[in-house]
Amino acid sequence: MDRNIQVSRLDRQAVEDQEVEIVERKGIGHPDSICDGVAESVSRALSQLYLDRVGKVLHYNTDETQLVAGRAAPAYGGGEVVEPIYLLIVGRATKQYDGQQLPVDSTALAAARDYLTEAIPELEYGTDVIVDVKLGEGSGDLQDVFGEETQQVPMANDTSFGVGHAPLTETETIVSEAERELNTTYHDEHPELGPDVKIMGKREGDRIDITVAAAMVDRHVDGLDDYDDAVSDVREFVTELAESHTDRAVSVDVNTADDYDEGSVYLTVTGTSAEQGDDGSVGRGNRANGLITPNRPMSMEATSGKNPVNHIGKIYNLLSTRIAESVTDEVDGIRDLQVRLLSQIGRPIDEPHVADAQIVTTDGVDLADIEDDVLAIVDEELADVTDITRSVIDGDVSTF
Amino acid sequence: MDRNIQVSRLDRQAVEDQEVEIVERKGIGHPDSICDGVAESVSRALSQLYLDRVGKVLHYNTDETQLVAGRAAPAYGGGEVVEPIYLLIVGRATKQYDGQQLPVDSTALAAARDYLTEAIPELEYGTDVIVDVKLGEGSGDLQDVFGEETQQVPMANDTSFGVGHAPLTETETIVSEAERELNTTYHDEHPELGPDVKIMGKREGDRIDITVAAAMVDRHVDGLDDYDDAVSDVREFVTELAESHTDRAVSVDVNTADDYDEGSVYLTVTGTSAEQGDDGSVGRGNRANGLITPNRPMSMEATSGKNPVNHIGKIYNLLSTRIAESVTDEVDGIRDLQVRLLSQIGRPIDEPHVADAQIVTTDGVDLADIEDDVLAIVDEELADVTDITRSVIDGDVSTF
Amino acid sequence: MDRNIQVSRLDRQAVEDQEVEIVERKGIGHPDSICDGVAESVSRALSQLYLDRVGKVLHYNTDETQLVAGRAAPAYGGGEVVEPIYLLIVGRATKQYDGQQLPVDSTALAAARDYLTEAIPELEYGTDVIVDVKLGEGSGDLQDVFGEETQQVPMANDTSFGVGHAPLTETETIVSEAERELNTTYHDEHPELGPDVKIMGKREGDRIDITVAAAMVDRHVDGLDDYDDAVSDVREFVTELAESHTDRAVSVDVNTADDYDEGSVYLTVTGTSAEQGDDGSVGRGNRANGLITPNRPMSMEATSGKNPVNHIGKIYNLLSTRIAESVTDEVDGIRDLQVRLLSQIGRPIDEPHVADAQIVTTDGVDLADIEDDVLAIVDEELADVTDITRSVIDGDVSTF
Amino acid sequence: MDRNIQVSRLDRQAVEDQEVEIVERKGIGHPDSICDGVAESVSRALSQLYLDRVGKVLHYNTDETQLVAGRAAPAYGGGEVVEPIYLLIVGRATKQYDGQQLPVDSTALAAARDYLTEAIPELEYGTDVIVDVKLGEGSGDLQDVFGEETQQVPMANDTSFGVGHAPLTETETIVSEAERELNTTYHDEHPELGPDVKIMGKREGDRIDITVAAAMVDRHVDGLDDYDDAVSDVREFVTELAESHTDRAVSVDVNTADDYDEGSVYLTVTGTSAEQGDDGSVGRGNRANGLITPNRPMSMEATSGKNPVNHIGKIYNLLSTRIAESVTDEVDGIRDLQVRLLSQIGRPIDEPHVADAQIVTTDGVDLADIEDDVLAIVDEELADVTDITRSVIDGDVSTF
Repeated sequence: MDRNIQVSRLDRQAVEDQEVEIVERKGIGHPDSICDGVAESVSRALSQLYLDRVGKVLHYNTDETQLVAGRAAPAYGGGEVVEPIYLLIVGRATKQYDGQQLPVDSTALAAARDYLTEAIPELEYGTDVIVDVKLGEGSGDLQDVFGEETQQVPMANDTSFGVGHAPLTETETIVSEAERELNTTYHDEHPELGPDVKIMGKREGDRIDITVAAAMVDRHVDGLDDYDDAVSDVREFVTELAESHTDRAVSVDVNTADDYDEGSVYLTVTGTSAEQGDDGSVGRGNRANGLITPNRPMSMEATSGKNPVNHIGKIYNLLSTRIAESVTDEVDGIRDLQVRLLSQIGRPIDEPHVADAQIVTTDGVDLADIEDDVLAIVDEELADVTDITRSVIDGDVSTF
Repeated sequence: MDRNIQVSRLDRQAVEDQEVEIVERKGIGHPDSICDGVAESVSRALSQLYLDRVGKVLHYNTDETQLVAGRAAPAYGGGEVVEPIYLLIVGRATKQYDGQQLPVDSTALAAARDYLTEAIPELEYGTDVIVDVKLGEGSGDLQDVFGEETQQVPMANDTSFGVGHAPLTETETIVSEAERELNTTYHDEHPELGPDVKIMGKREGDRIDITVAAAMVDRHVDGLDDYDDAVSDVREFVTELAESHTDRAVSVDVNTADDYDEGSVYLTVTGTSAEQGDDGSVGRGNRANGLITPNRPMSMEATSGKNPVNHIGKIYNLLSTRIAESVTDEVDGIRDLQVRLLSQIGRPIDEPHVADAQIVTTDGVDLADIEDDVLAIVDEELADVTDITRSVIDGDVSTF
Repeated sequence: MDRNIQVSRLDRQAVEDQEVEIVERKGIGHPDSICDGVAESVSRALSQLYLDRVGKVLHYNTDETQLVAGRAAPAYGGGEVVEPIYLLIVGRATKQYDGQQLPVDSTALAAARDYLTEAIPELEYGTDVIVDVKLGEGSGDLQDVFGEETQQVPMANDTSFGVGHAPLTETETIVSEAERELNTTYHDEHPELGPDVKIMGKREGDRIDITVAAAMVDRHVDGLDDYDDAVSDVREFVTELAESHTDRAVSVDVNTADDYDEGSVYLTVTGTSAEQGDDGSVGRGNRANGLITPNRPMSMEATSGKNPVNHIGKIYNLLSTRIAESVTDEVDGIRDLQVRLLSQIGRPIDEPHVADAQIVTTDGVDLADIEDDVLAIVDEELADVTDITRSVIDGDVSTF
Repeated sequence: MDRNIQVSRLDRQAVEDQEVEIVERKGIGHPDSICDGVAESVSRALSQLYLDRVGKVLHYNTDETQLVAGRAAPAYGGGEVVEPIYLLIVGRATKQYDGQQLPVDSTALAAARDYLTEAIPELEYGTDVIVDVKLGEGSGDLQDVFGEETQQVPMANDTSFGVGHAPLTETETIVSEAERELNTTYHDEHPELGPDVKIMGKREGDRIDITVAAAMVDRHVDGLDDYDDAVSDVREFVTELAESHTDRAVSVDVNTADDYDEGSVYLTVTGTSAEQGDDGSVGRGNRANGLITPNRPMSMEATSGKNPVNHIGKIYNLLSTRIAESVTDEVDGIRDLQVRLLSQIGRPIDEPHVADAQIVTTDGVDLADIEDDVLAIVDEELADVTDITRSVIDGDVSTF
């Protein structure tokens, strides 16, 4: 098979070298990310249900979860949710196969419950949040198959494209790492930090400004002094983390909208702004690589919740990022790499209409020197496309 | 204060002596009873919330829970719920008082969860059943008060009436006791019996036919033989119970709609028919005394979910039954007693427009001999009317 | 065929001769009646849909509509609905037959819209009221048939009973007629009167008190004086109507909860209290004969929304009333007649387990003289039982 | 006031000169666009409501409408919707002001109804589509003001950015124009074409491929031949339109997924795929300028439904596009212009943190020659920022 792979020079400066760069990441507790996370958990649970029951993945898509914010009355030492969050799981799923009824609604709810309990532990399922589900029946003749016995590669469900890049710039690295560390290692020792951490990075020349909006959990905060300490701790942690990734000047602001005199601070009961007025939706936040990067081409496709078998909007966004990472891992001399995959409806997904690797080389490196290596890696990754599907179902790949 | 209490002869035969008698009780797992139970649990939780937060009960009514049935795939040894039950808590509640926000929605959900978990333990909250809530804001100027500092008796909120009777006939006793015993002592040793037990008693002359519809829980039933044993055990238990309450001829049928040849039996995953097509609603099942008794006057008012402070439709149905029971406990010579209480809107609830005790005496007893005793007890119970409110909030009185 | 029909003496005074009588009717605009009306309209539309598409009525029941009240800001000359009413149509329906998809949801919505537009014309569909629908799939093997080609009588779906009576007492006649006239002839000339008219009749001895709660429509009322006139007009109309039906003393009160000094009157935007805090539900209001009559035996079954083919809870309540009316129309000498029909699950519906006509004769008439005539009429009406089904589908019979 | 405006060279080729270009537009009948359109209509209606009632725009955002697809049974000559579309309007709005209740829910529903009736005329409101609404109360102290008496410029509600560009490339022009013409002039003479027209443009070098997915309305299509004619007509129309905008080679494909042998064609009852399985959501489709342009920087912000007073995510995306258009209208020598506006929370919206105009000049033009003109226009447009707000409320600006 001859894949249509093109390697060319990227006709702009590397983002790292541009004058102004903006990067954003919405943490896992942000209302949009909650929707992404639930949608993807439901997707994985349905894939697994289908594999367990009928040996292959049947037609479904669950990429439309909607969150309606609640109301809360936070208070130092512990407040309460007054009006629960309402979360509606939306999508299509195959509910019958070969005379067998498949518990897609119950499976979706259980997946949502398990995900929410882990991701937003302070949010009590069923009282602080109501989860409802509207999964329509998919049209039967679109039932796509994936399973042990199916060796062939699925066909693309649409004409669409995916885009990925590598390596991350310093600012991207800082934004990405800061959120992940705050929500893991930092959180382990600082239970007052909730999972709704939103990080905006702005670089102008050699100055990087990091703005963090961090929801604090009221029952772990005794008063304003305590709150102020919590904010300072976050600032210090992020500053240190940032400085370990760059030699540029770094400044970090946390919860800039606070007004201590007015007693107006970012205090929450559950650690997410969804408890108080912030609605959310799938596909409105982070792109497939976990970042929002307006300096770069982005796909509008929601990656979370789509079936990972033949939904090109999901597969090609994840795959293009994986390709970019593999190439930059294995090939030296690349300062910026952008990979685009364009599908053609009805064609096998390992044969994109065009796979396009655009490169800014480092000083002194000629594109021609690395072109063959790049091409080989792209080809190899495309051949392994179904590996993405398996990784997604196993939960080894993050989609937001 | 002079209460308008009338004692008179009941102008018909005692129900025990009528030729045909019909009595029904829907067990706690019946879809209508589930709604009654949730509505009343929510009501008690809101009363308690108001007492805890503002020292008095504020305006609310939650007597409109609606249950939309799910779908299930029961199977010997254990099946599953395929489409969850949807339960919508409906009503009015005061959400703000004196600048304080009151978590009525979250409180309602927690009450529903706790009640369902106890009453229908096989039903997993949040996956087998979705509970949603729509509690509108009550009109502020109807905020009714009840609390330590309020010594006066509330005013009736409506012109309405309540009706109660005592003693129970044999058939009523059997139907009532059978459901309660099946769902407690019997269930403890027979986990295969679900809480959705519906009992119909029909007496023609001296013959009593008891028909039981009993949902069996699949994971405790290995196969058809096992199921048949489970049905036989229920029949035997109810027969014995019935015979301990009557000398009349008794026959008991259980799950008469079963068709073993077709493999069509009353097997469920969760022990309630709500899992498969049976919707439910508040106020559609048992009356305030736990029975449906078409031989007797009945109130159409839903008792469950109404506020117990000034909602006459609730208070007078419970109170009239309590009065009837007190009278027959303390006064000999009564074969059938019917108590009616008629309110007048805006008057104190301990001063009904008319309280009416109608009596069939036993042979040889003259109404005049007992009239004064009856009158005194009625008067005393009316004076203690707010005790009903307290008992309801404490959960000491059943409303369905 | 020998039907089990029993004619006997009713062992109590005629209700007309009892000392105290209570009668109530909730008008068509009352929240409970709105639910009854929608449920029954949906039922008729589904019956018709099935007849049109597959030539017979398939399995369905739609007897669980739930109304969640809205909020309104009425004002003399015309106010507005602030928060719409939410109405959820609940039930089961067959959605596929013989490979054909049947538009049950759309049909249900269209029926609800048409009914509401006619019954509550001031209520704008889709903005003042949101109508939602949750119709589950009925279990396929319960698909009941009714159609041209089906000549046999259906089997009862349950062991249940119905009860009816005739003739109406004076108080019953007044309550019934007053609501119907107010909502038709009176309304035609008095557009200020909304359809939510609730009438309570109480007779003590020879004194009849009629209490009317009548929702006035604000855009037809200019101010308090105008409102007061509207109330007086209703009082006058009902008084005149009542006096034409009785020689007893009559008093009529209208909107007794009004407080003119406080400016608190029963003014509405749409003519129904559902716009402001009064929820509603099917089967909570009027019985099948349009009245609530606690002096008489009543069935708890909701008649509205049930399928009219084999649902005994519907058919026997309507049929027992029809039998009672036929008997009293054709046989002289009856002061009070009560008809009870008891079904047996799985038996043809024209062969009740027992049909029971209990009679209080007028002075000088002996039961034996009329027994045969009564028996013949009961037998004839039972033989025509499927005529009830047809009348219900055609909308010729009211169910609430 | 000195605004921070920067004019610089855009460090890449003009998109028109890049080797591969992808452009997409989802027509107004696409499920995502339906959500955008409803959200924006609701937004405008609320702005107007607030202006009418209290003289200024109060706090609200309605940028989260969710559409759950229905099911339909299309048929040549006219089919039917079987299961209605469900559309949930989500957001926040101020419901009370100065003691006055504001009918935000009813207003939102009326706006949705009016919009849908106009945009998707074949879709019957209330039966083919159920519109529900969940608008939470905005936090009171965020009530933002806009009105006659408020002369000052509002403060930015967030640190965010907007991006716009001009002029459109040929491919962009074709995609944009094709959808608009199909849905207006073409539709007027071709009622068989539904509003759900999705257009994908792909340019490789000098070859432009246009792919159109066009939902046909069944009641205007008699059979497969007729359908085939309808498809051909669209192809011809778009081809002609495209060729009028470019000298490049053009090819147009319409409904490529059709399979005539299988009888599988893109036939609908209502003209939108939302009737059959395609869910939708706000902000998932077209960007503020009506296009999806992965070759260019894009903002992830949903523009539709956000309040146009201080919501920077809306204002700056619309304004940056307007600025780009003004500049290229008035200044010669610009081949590609990209405008970025970065806000700072709490600062007046006419004083962005940075306004950044990046330019690719046409051959022979030096940036220095036009820099001052560009700067002046940017400055002037920023000074007029509130004009955007007014245009949005008046409906003069499209947001998707």
